[in-house]
Amino acid sequence: MTSANGSQRNKILALSGGVGGAKLALGLAHMLPTQQLTIVANTADDFSHLGLTICPDLDTVMYTLAGINNKQQGWGLADESWAVMSALTRIGAEDWFQLGDQDIATHLQRSQQLANSDSLSAVTEALCQRLGVKHKLLPMSDDPVRTQIKTAQGDLAFQHYFVRERCRPAVSGFYFSGIEQAKPQHEFMALLQSDELAAIIICPSNPFVSVEPILQLAGVREAMAASAAPVIAVSPIVAGLAIKGPAAKMMTELEIPATATAVAEYYGDLLDGFVLDQTDQHLQSEISALGLPVLSTATIMKTLQDRIDLASAVLSFAENIIKSSLGGRH
Amino acid sequence: MTSANGSQRNKILALSGGVGGAKLALGLAHMLPTQQLTIVANTADDFSHLGLTICPDLDTVMYTLAGINNKQQGWGLADESWAVMSALTRIGAEDWFQLGDQDIATHLQRSQQLANSDSLSAVTEALCQRLGVKHKLLPMSDDPVRTQIKTAQGDLAFQHYFVRERCRPAVSGFYFSGIEQAKPQHEFMALLQSDELAAIIICPSNPFVSVEPILQLAGVREAMAASAAPVIAVSPIVAGLAIKGPAAKMMTELEIPATATAVAEYYGDLLDGFVLDQTDQHLQSEISALGLPVLSTATIMKTLQDRIDLASAVLSFAENIIKSSLGGRH
Repeated sequence: MTSANGSQRNKILALSGGVGGAKLALGLAHMLPTQQLTIVANTADDFSHLGLTICPDLDTVMYTLAGINNKQQGWGLADESWAVMSALTRIGAEDWFQLGDQDIATHLQRSQQLANSDSLSAVTEALCQRLGVKHKLLPMSDDPVRTQIKTAQGDLAFQHYFVRERCRPAVSGFYFSGIEQAKPQHEFMALLQSDELAAIIICPSNPFVSVEPILQLAGVREAMAASAAPVIAVSPIVAGLAIKGPAAKMMTELEIPATATAVAEYYGDLLDGFVLDQTDQHLQSEISALGLPVLSTATIMKTLQDRIDLASAVLSFAENIIKSSLGGRH
Repeated sequence: MTSANGSQRNKILALSGGVGGAKLALGLAHMLPTQQLTIVANTADDFSHLGLTICPDLDTVMYTLAGINNKQQGWGLADESWAVMSALTRIGAEDWFQLGDQDIATHLQRSQQLANSDSLSAVTEALCQRLGVKHKLLPMSDDPVRTQIKTAQGDLAFQHYFVRERCRPAVSGFYFSGIEQAKPQHEFMALLQSDELAAIIICPSNPFVSVEPILQLAGVREAMAASAAPVIAVSPIVAGLAIKGPAAKMMTELEIPATATAVAEYYGDLLDGFVLDQTDQHLQSEISALGLPVLSTATIMKTLQDRIDLASAVLSFAENIIKSSLGGRH
C-alpha cells in the first residue's frame, strides 16, 4: 500500500492489554517483519507492590513475544518457581499477589532502573533485547497512570480489585489516575501520526480497563481518527462471555449487554472495522447496521496456529477497508 | 551477680559481625535465657543493591539464631534456591552479589518497610519474631553507616571490596560514611548504660570492619569503658589466620602482625579480658603482659557443641573478671 505522498504504508500498530491481546500480538509478530509491527501495551494496571514496580500487561506481552510465557496458566513465566513467595509468606509479607521468582527478577531490574531515572520505555527496550523480543513493544506512556475501579466497597486500585478481591465487587465505573498529566509514549504518538501506518488493531482486550486508558491519553483518539489507517477492533466478548478476565461481568454490572455488539458500540466512531467470533455470526448484521465492516472468523486462540490465523485474517480485513476519513464517519 | 544498687547483674551484650560472630551468638543463645542476651550486629556492611537494602551481618546473625542458616556455606539460608539470580543474569542485571530466593524475600520485605519509614530495629524485630528468633537482636544503629575500604584502586564500598573484588585489592585503611551522624540503637545504648549488664562480649569478628564501626558510634566506647561489666574479646585470628574473611590479609596489608596479640593491642584499653585459641597458647604471656586476663580455649566452632562450649567458657571467664573500672586501666 502506498500513501498519498508516496511513502510505503506497511506499518501495523496493535493496542494490547494482557493475555488476550498478547495472543494476537504474537500472531501478528509471526506474520510481520520486525520493522512493520509496533505493539503498545496498557500500563494503567501497573502498580507498586513490595517496593517493586510491576507492569502486568506489558510483561505478559513481553514474555509472550519472547516465548517464555506460561502457556497453561495464561500469565507469568514458563518453568516458574515460587521460592521468594513462600519465604515472603513465612516472614508475614503481603502475599496476595503471586510473584514468581523469574518474574521478580524482571521487577527488581525494572524498579532499580526506574529509580535511576530511566524511562519505562528504555527499561522495556532493554528487557526485550535481553529476552530476544524482536518486534517493538512500547508502554502506552512513560508517565504513571493507575486504573481505579469504582465499586460499592469504594474505589479500588486495579490489582486490588482484580487479584486481591478476585473481581468480586460490583463495578460502577472506572477512572485513570494520572491520565491528564500522562503523555502518550513518543514513538507510539509518532507512529499514530505517520503516513506509513497501514492499520491500527485493537486487540481482544478489556475495552474498559485495558484499551480505554490508552485511548484516553492526550491526543490518541484524535490521532487515531485523523490517521488514514483503519482502526480495527477484535471483540474480547464471545457468546456473551469474556475469554479471559472480568470484561463480561463488568458489562453486566454497568448495565451494558455483554455482547460483541456492545463492544463495537463502546468504541463507536473510533472504529473502521470490527472482528467478531464466528460463534457470534448472528450479530454481524446488527453491527454492520452501525455502519461498520464486520469480519466473522475464529477468534478463540488456543494454539499458536490460531493466533497466526487470526492475525492473518485481521490484516487481510484491514487491507480491504477503505477508511472514509475524509467526510466520512469521523 | 548483684550490682552496687542491688539490681540483678545478669545481662550479656554481644557485639557481632557476620559468620564468626553469629556462631558465638548462637552458643550464647543456647546458654542464656532470652531476657539475658542482647546481640548487636554491625550494619556498616549494609548496602543498597538492585533497589534492596541488604544487611549481611544482621541477617547472618538472624538466620543463624533462627536455625535456618546454611551451615555448609557459612552465609545465606539452608535449602536456598537461586531462580531470581539466574533470571537476573538472563536479563543483564548486576549479578556479582549472589542473592538466594528466600534471602531476597527478606530484603524485599525490609526494603519496603524501611521505605514506609519503619526503623531498621522495628523491621528486624518483626523479622526475628516471624522466624522464631527469641533473643534480642539489634542493629548497631537505625541510621545508615557504610564502610569504605581505602585501596590502591581508590575507595571501595565494603561489599564491592568484599564480594565483587573478592578482597583482592590491598587495604590501606577504612572509614565509615555516616558514622558521625549515626546514633547507636537506643536499646543498645540503654543496655550499655545499665547496671544490669554483666559482660560485654566482642565476638570473633573482623576488628576493623565488623567491630570498629560499632565502637565508633557516638558514646559507645565511653559507655563500654564506664560500664561495670567487663569487656571480653574473642580473637578472630587463630595461628595467624582468620577463620573466615579477610581480617588476616588486612592486618598484613596494614603492616600489623596477623596475630591474636595484635588484635588484643588493637582493642587496647577497651578490654578487660581476652580469649584466644588454644593453638595460640604461646601468645598468652605476651597478651597477659598487656595487663589483660587471658583465657586460652578451643575457639574454632565447627559444631553446635563447639559454639555452646565456647560461649560457656567465655561467660565463666567474664564472671571471674573483676573490672578495675575505678582508677584502673580505663
